[in-house]
Amino acid sequence: MHPDNLLQQINFIKEIDKVKLIQRKTKLFNSDRNENDAEHSWHLAMMTIVLAEHAEVPIDVLKVLKMVLIHDIVEIDAGDTFIYDTVKSHSNTDEERLAANRIFGMLPKEQAEEFISIWEEFELGQTNEAKFARSMDRLEPLLQNTSNKGGTWAEFDVDYHKVYEKKKVIKEGSTALWNYAENLINESVEKGILKKSDSKS
Amino acid sequence: MHPDNLLQQINFIKEIDKVKLIQRKTKLFNSDRNENDAEHSWHLAMMTIVLAEHAEVPIDVLKVLKMVLIHDIVEIDAGDTFIYDTVKSHSNTDEERLAANRIFGMLPKEQAEEFISIWEEFELGQTNEAKFARSMDRLEPLLQNTSNKGGTWAEFDVDYHKVYEKKKVIKEGSTALWNYAENLINESVEKGILKKSDSKS
Repeated sequence: MHPDNLLQQINFIKEIDKVKLIQRKTKLFNSDRNENDAEHSWHLAMMTIVLAEHAEVPIDVLKVLKMVLIHDIVEIDAGDTFIYDTVKSHSNTDEERLAANRIFGMLPKEQAEEFISIWEEFELGQTNEAKFARSMDRLEPLLQNTSNKGGTWAEFDVDYHKVYEKKKVIKEGSTALWNYAENLINESVEKGILKKSDSKS
Repeated sequence: MHPDNLLQQINFIKEIDKVKLIQRKTKLFNSDRNENDAEHSWHLAMMTIVLAEHAEVPIDVLKVLKMVLIHDIVEIDAGDTFIYDTVKSHSNTDEERLAANRIFGMLPKEQAEEFISIWEEFELGQTNEAKFARSMDRLEPLLQNTSNKGGTWAEFDVDYHKVYEKKKVIKEGSTALWNYAENLINESVEKGILKKSDSKS
């Protein structure tokens, strides 16, 4: 180990504390308190450990954990983007790429390259690990919104079609989890906590 | 997979949201806002990924991640115990054991047994993975307190000897990290943010 490595790593560890200050739109379960990115990332990591057996194909759990733990660190500079935002796209904005280079770039070179590569893999969503990690990222707010009588769906006037469109990628990570999620979406319409505007079709 | 497994797992995932509501004594970096157990666990997981190369012996990083991610879940029932509390010991109280059985017991049998076993391994602190995980758990609040002009040391009147006694187990996980931590403790005395009462010796 190069003697400067540890100091760079400690500075990175201090910097990422800011993830705890980034508020998401979604609320905690059965709560009106917004979730922050650190809490969200911890929950996705727990879901990964608990639900890995349902992955479509066997996955490298350690890699998925790294993905979900670091996936929102870029938001320290770029801010949280709401999934149903129609103006700003969530994925791979220039702002997020600059953020990844600055923040992960605080680490020793080899480690910085590994973290940037893992973040890019998550964003692209092509590998089995990225697909499963993204399933976790889509499933958690679905569970939260259904526990909060519609949560952000009601608050931001989001309908069934938009939810279905965003959530169906869960299937790429796990058919079993998608079957569960699809049921939950349909049940939400039946319960009246998610509106289905037939006039649109 | 047994068809009931997923429902048990989803109920567990909802239950552990409560970890986000458990406040620790320590504050965020350069902040007067208390950290909660989910944020703390996420930070330990990040530190594990970043600092694993400094482990005294090669470790199973996935196992350490599981340890740090789940180690405070028992506090949903048992509550947070302050490390410098002289009345209530932190480790292996009956209350925590009951909590582990109830909360991890919500999972399918095989998974429940794995989680309880990993939690016990962390608490006992005998294996290389447990030693490294415990180093992370002791290092984070040291970094926080030094960034907060003494933080909980000043607030709860904790002196050098107590801090040194609690932090020296970092060495069992990593000599390199202990060397860094020991310097930080000594520097804190020099800076006047940690008192060293010579009258005690």
